[in-house]
Amino acid sequence: MNVHELFAYFDANKERLLEELFTFLRFQSISTEAESVEQVNACAAWVESYLSEKGLTTDRWEEGGHPIIFAEWCKAGKDKPTVLVYGHYDVQPVDPLELWQSPPFEPEVRDGEIFARGAQDNKGQCFYTIAAITSLLAENGSLPVNVKILIEGEEEAGSESLERACSKRQDQLKADYYWVVDMGFHAMEQPAITLGLRGMTSMTVTFRGSNTDLHSGAHGGIVYNPNRALVEVLGKLFDEEGRVLVPGFYDGIEDVSPEDKKCIDFHFDPEHYKAMFKAEANGGESAFSPLESAWLRPTLEINGISGGYSGDGFKTVIPAIAKAKISCRLVPGQNPKEIYSALESYINSLAPQGIEVEIKHEHSGNSMRTSPSSAAVQAAAQAYTEVCGIPCSYIMCGGSVPVTASVAAAAGAETVLIGYGLPGDNLHAPNEHFGVERVRLGFATIGRMLELFEKLPLGSA
Amino acid sequence: MNVHELFAYFDANKERLLEELFTFLRFQSISTEAESVEQVNACAAWVESYLSEKGLTTDRWEEGGHPIIFAEWCKAGKDKPTVLVYGHYDVQPVDPLELWQSPPFEPEVRDGEIFARGAQDNKGQCFYTIAAITSLLAENGSLPVNVKILIEGEEEAGSESLERACSKRQDQLKADYYWVVDMGFHAMEQPAITLGLRGMTSMTVTFRGSNTDLHSGAHGGIVYNPNRALVEVLGKLFDEEGRVLVPGFYDGIEDVSPEDKKCIDFHFDPEHYKAMFKAEANGGESAFSPLESAWLRPTLEINGISGGYSGDGFKTVIPAIAKAKISCRLVPGQNPKEIYSALESYINSLAPQGIEVEIKHEHSGNSMRTSPSSAAVQAAAQAYTEVCGIPCSYIMCGGSVPVTASVAAAAGAETVLIGYGLPGDNLHAPNEHFGVERVRLGFATIGRMLELFEKLPLGSA
Repeated sequence: MNVHELFAYFDANKERLLEELFTFLRFQSISTEAESVEQVNACAAWVESYLSEKGLTTDRWEEGGHPIIFAEWCKAGKDKPTVLVYGHYDVQPVDPLELWQSPPFEPEVRDGEIFARGAQDNKGQCFYTIAAITSLLAENGSLPVNVKILIEGEEEAGSESLERACSKRQDQLKADYYWVVDMGFHAMEQPAITLGLRGMTSMTVTFRGSNTDLHSGAHGGIVYNPNRALVEVLGKLFDEEGRVLVPGFYDGIEDVSPEDKKCIDFHFDPEHYKAMFKAEANGGESAFSPLESAWLRPTLEINGISGGYSGDGFKTVIPAIAKAKISCRLVPGQNPKEIYSALESYINSLAPQGIEVEIKHEHSGNSMRTSPSSAAVQAAAQAYTEVCGIPCSYIMCGGSVPVTASVAAAAGAETVLIGYGLPGDNLHAPNEHFGVERVRLGFATIGRMLELFEKLPLGSA
Repeated sequence: MNVHELFAYFDANKERLLEELFTFLRFQSISTEAESVEQVNACAAWVESYLSEKGLTTDRWEEGGHPIIFAEWCKAGKDKPTVLVYGHYDVQPVDPLELWQSPPFEPEVRDGEIFARGAQDNKGQCFYTIAAITSLLAENGSLPVNVKILIEGEEEAGSESLERACSKRQDQLKADYYWVVDMGFHAMEQPAITLGLRGMTSMTVTFRGSNTDLHSGAHGGIVYNPNRALVEVLGKLFDEEGRVLVPGFYDGIEDVSPEDKKCIDFHFDPEHYKAMFKAEANGGESAFSPLESAWLRPTLEINGISGGYSGDGFKTVIPAIAKAKISCRLVPGQNPKEIYSALESYINSLAPQGIEVEIKHEHSGNSMRTSPSSAAVQAAAQAYTEVCGIPCSYIMCGGSVPVTASVAAAAGAETVLIGYGLPGDNLHAPNEHFGVERVRLGFATIGRMLELFEKLPLGSA
């Protein structure tokens, strides 16, 4: 189908398609919360039956965590490329719940935007992808390329099951191209393909000063307050230029080639950013522009700190423990395990006497980068240009899809990072949302890509 | 009554007295929690009726916050001293609730200790005080001295109502001696009178970096994470010798006279402390011993920090805000308002560009000190020595009863700080407890003090 036919199909079936998406959004599939496990499983079952009812062969991979739904339609022929498509059905936690204007698992459309946890990340994007594939199959009785669909339930929790599957199921994963539909770009006026993802490593740090909370009057001046130890140690993570002080943090970083760098749009409008988030763009290394910092440079963030009393009023306590959750975003040339160890050693070396330090590994994943000159990136860009009516440009992503590099390696496929996320979608935050029109554009983009990839060379599949 | 008679009375009435104390403990009178207000009021009403039923004239002072119960029996004659007795019926919050071995408002005796929120601070101590006064009055039909009782409900919340009452009700408060029964000592083998309290000032600090939580992948390297700003600023509160770096913090501190210092027991056993709290005693200024730090020196504590995600698993968020609750314990010569302003200015001066700082005053109160050579302190020491059968010694207290200095000034009275608290009572923490035997000793001590103070000179009353 051409772009017009794809739009016409979507518009004619809009009500049904959105109702299907809303059903998908209603599952409380928070992968990191033990109490959500039933909803996670129900959500996986819904995805599986959605795909099998529409003619794909489905499989449910159990790898110790939440199920991975694998589906395929590989009847295009051996002379046609095989595309492996990635999405995830799990979502982030929702707290602070009181900041949501509508309940996170009761999708609501306001001003053309669908508000729900996962509306963008990743159920909205995952849905238009599987909707486009299954719709094309239903309309034409076949697809231009062989398609494999991989939808996991632990993207927000470290993708451990999928990591295990990567080492066991290389045959099933084998593909020529790997589409990761979990991306976005800066503004609707400037659709863009993503040429890189950062890797990550994260940890929970616990500082213990005593075996019980202590009264700050009686014990203030005696015990070493773990809150104090924590701020003193974490206060030494950055220098005044915003550089991370962990020894070896920047060693071996691979720079992007000057030619590729020229193709990438690093334009950033601090006024627009300020208007959108009431935030300044001064958090990165002072030697780099905001988007260079977020895309080409590794960063470290304290995602959570807690210790003592934080409720209403005041409690004059010296807490027994203080905690921090820390993550690093990594770039090619950095090994997540090495960075984790370097950070762990640095924190241990700074902790004062009398403070018991416990550091727990959370998640790690490799970074990835692709080139704007690859045939696959060019074909995807053409689809965007046709669908949006605007020339597609190239950006990078500061975020991580931890398992991307692993799947790409297992599949032996070239990765293409696509999606219709926007910076103001509040992903991972209260009031996450995604536009109905973007569901439509995404649907048409996937439809066009299925046709445009038919002509692409076969890789290893 | 002599000590034996007082013990005999207590033992004969033990069951009734403990049941009365348990009733007192069952009220969830958390003064800082809006949802506890009914229980706070019910608790005040119970205190009032307890005292009025036993023959005291009671009054209920409403000063905009929780009621203050004022009671008096002033029929000893104008030639007899008037004693003003202080306690509070409000308690600290109870979180983390899951660490309590029995519910905090269902008192339970285990191994001779009463476990409940407020068991020591201050319901247990308040109770033996009013029980001794009302028992003596019932037995003898009169008291050796004139007695005024002041029991407030906002000690854990800043005592604002009582502060207001101090400036309006000086006539009613007027007394010769002011007993504050909210203290303790190091070990039962060494009963002691407390010669000083630290003052305090406290604040809630909020750092805002953006108007919403942001994804640490997309925004890491762009926005200044308020968690980072908070640890960087709070990490500069202390130097490596444990001295507070707030400019002017130590200016004008009044030292204790060498003679008085000789009378005070600064003995501290770090091994015992470690065995008790699994904590080192290296939190104070390195130039001072632990108890010098806690009693003679001002200290600063971060009582709470919070920002971002702290639950199970991980959330890759850059929070919109990070918060800290900070309190300073102060000594004579320090003005709480000036220290508050100095700390406020210091934090503001350190906050990085792009971080919006909001600092809210919580509570302040003056410090106080008395001399071991005063006749009132000597009389109280005699009561302790008789009751415990061990010579009474002198200590100080690192804690604060913020309103003590204000009441003492309004009453024109000399302050005596007494009580049977012990360091392991877990006040302000889970599993707070107080010994049944200490209720008995406190009862007898108050009884003896009522008689011993009869001979003391009249002050301003």
